[in-house]
Amino acid sequence: MASVENPASPTAEGRLAQEFAVPSHVEAERVRMAEFAEHHGSAGRRVVLITSGGTKVPLESRTVRFLDNFSSGRRGASSAEYFLDSGYAVIFLHRHRSLYPYTRLYSGVNLLDTLQMEGEGSSGQVVVDQVALPNIRAVLKRYRAVKEAGLLLPVEFSTLSEYLHLLKAAAQALSSIGPKAMFYLAAAVSDFYIPASEMPEHKIQSSNGPLQISMKMVPKMLSPLVKDWAPQAFVISFKLETDATILLERARRALDTYRHQAVVANVLDTRRGYVVVVTSDTQAELALTEEDSHKGVEIEERIVGNLSAAHSNFIAQQG
Amino acid sequence: MASVENPASPTAEGRLAQEFAVPSHVEAERVRMAEFAEHHGSAGRRVVLITSGGTKVPLESRTVRFLDNFSSGRRGASSAEYFLDSGYAVIFLHRHRSLYPYTRLYSGVNLLDTLQMEGEGSSGQVVVDQVALPNIRAVLKRYRAVKEAGLLLPVEFSTLSEYLHLLKAAAQALSSIGPKAMFYLAAAVSDFYIPASEMPEHKIQSSNGPLQISMKMVPKMLSPLVKDWAPQAFVISFKLETDATILLERARRALDTYRHQAVVANVLDTRRGYVVVVTSDTQAELALTEEDSHKGVEIEERIVGNLSAAHSNFIAQQG
Repeated sequence: MASVENPASPTAEGRLAQEFAVPSHVEAERVRMAEFAEHHGSAGRRVVLITSGGTKVPLESRTVRFLDNFSSGRRGASSAEYFLDSGYAVIFLHRHRSLYPYTRLYSGVNLLDTLQMEGEGSSGQVVVDQVALPNIRAVLKRYRAVKEAGLLLPVEFSTLSEYLHLLKAAAQALSSIGPKAMFYLAAAVSDFYIPASEMPEHKIQSSNGPLQISMKMVPKMLSPLVKDWAPQAFVISFKLETDATILLERARRALDTYRHQAVVANVLDTRRGYVVVVTSDTQAELALTEEDSHKGVEIEERIVGNLSAAHSNFIAQQG
Repeated sequence: MASVENPASPTAEGRLAQEFAVPSHVEAERVRMAEFAEHHGSAGRRVVLITSGGTKVPLESRTVRFLDNFSSGRRGASSAEYFLDSGYAVIFLHRHRSLYPYTRLYSGVNLLDTLQMEGEGSSGQVVVDQVALPNIRAVLKRYRAVKEAGLLLPVEFSTLSEYLHLLKAAAQALSSIGPKAMFYLAAAVSDFYIPASEMPEHKIQSSNGPLQISMKMVPKMLSPLVKDWAPQAFVISFKLETDATILLERARRALDTYRHQAVVANVLDTRRGYVVVVTSDTQAELALTEEDSHKGVEIEERIVGNLSAAHSNFIAQQG
């Protein structure tokens, strides 16, 4: 049997430092996030860090090939909107080019199919076809208001290494506001990676025959995050499985191991209409009815409603 | 030493049939492509099939994780525009959500940052900020003209299996127009995959310890494409390496093996400003000067110019 790492091991942070070089922009991002948290914290606002999208795991150091996770970033992007509606300030730590709050509503359309020219030649207005971009005025208004109030701070990652270091930087940045910080870890983070020392520099040649890839387990950052980096914060992790029969047991096991506040458990095929929010002593099923779906209600509205209420209780208990 | 497959082996087509299940929509796409080719062929137009973007290789049958190739689809999308400018009809076989002709020019901007509301409340126009979307009127005009003339047929793939079967379908569809068909194979196709029979059904559990992935070589479709599916066509493949020292030798070897018309050879770091078009008896270096780059000239304009001239000669020789 393969050896199982102890995820509560104090070496996760050590492994991060040793095995993943710090990208050069992380310190500047940490400062931006800390300023954002302090600003909104002192205005009495709660701040949520949302992670969203999948991580890229290079197989070669000059990367042509990489391992990725299935994730459009839809859940993170829509949740960001509901957190903003609930009065939170949002740090949106997302995969480059994954879905983005508000813009996500139009991700399936080709921009050039939604525009109409007025006038002739090179001058004249270009106008939006409001049938092709439904609700565009309302969405644009909301997007503008959020942007002008400075309530949404986007931070981007592509590789696993960028994600891990930016998550640590975010946790440090949010520690100043204590229990008013929420971590909503919806990103699909790789469990496996190839250490830089074992990676070929150049593109792997197919003429060398079949490919054997040997991947190491990624250190579990939830452990130092909960214990050391942001011990007062309200922390939510996500558990996605394809096999419904093992889901709740895995969610409980994660809570037992990391001692954070909640796990949002979901199954790949039904994730848009059904999740279970698991805490140490509760288990709340959130589900959309057919009528909800017809009306365009999103499950993220329910998830955010459930968690922001739980966050209120959490803050009250700490106070 | 690992065994090297003979890429010219007649079994590539057999392996495609045996190892990759045919996706259900392939036959309908074949019919669409055949109608497109016949329509434009009988109007005296040449037709180019451009493949673009990377292929997704699932590691699990209910896919959470996959192997991918670095490719935004920029080269394919911009080349499509220059082929359209040169009078070709274009079948654009591209990775879902990779860059698309014309729209690619605005891929980096957030749609909602480019729009301005006129009037108040829920009515009134929404107008494009033409500073945020430079040249939008000219681009929109060109996009519309191409669309109205029916000169661009988009076909999408995501997985390697979809790509392989759609490529075969495209080759069959284009065989009716003989030497007037060009294949411009710019997609970044995986060299490796995991056979369905060896794939776990469910998400691989990280608690099982380190991951060993064993991948098989993908059958080389260039071989049946050139020999059987579209033997009269003008076929271009691409060779991307990270190591410049092996590039030209690899390009020559590909030409020797598959006996197609040209290889566009390029190195990852310099691919936007320098390529070599290699044929059995010529080697043309195409490079942008600094002045070209300042003016916004793209290397794809040069590549398409070179290849469409070569295609003219090729057609004349066959006639």
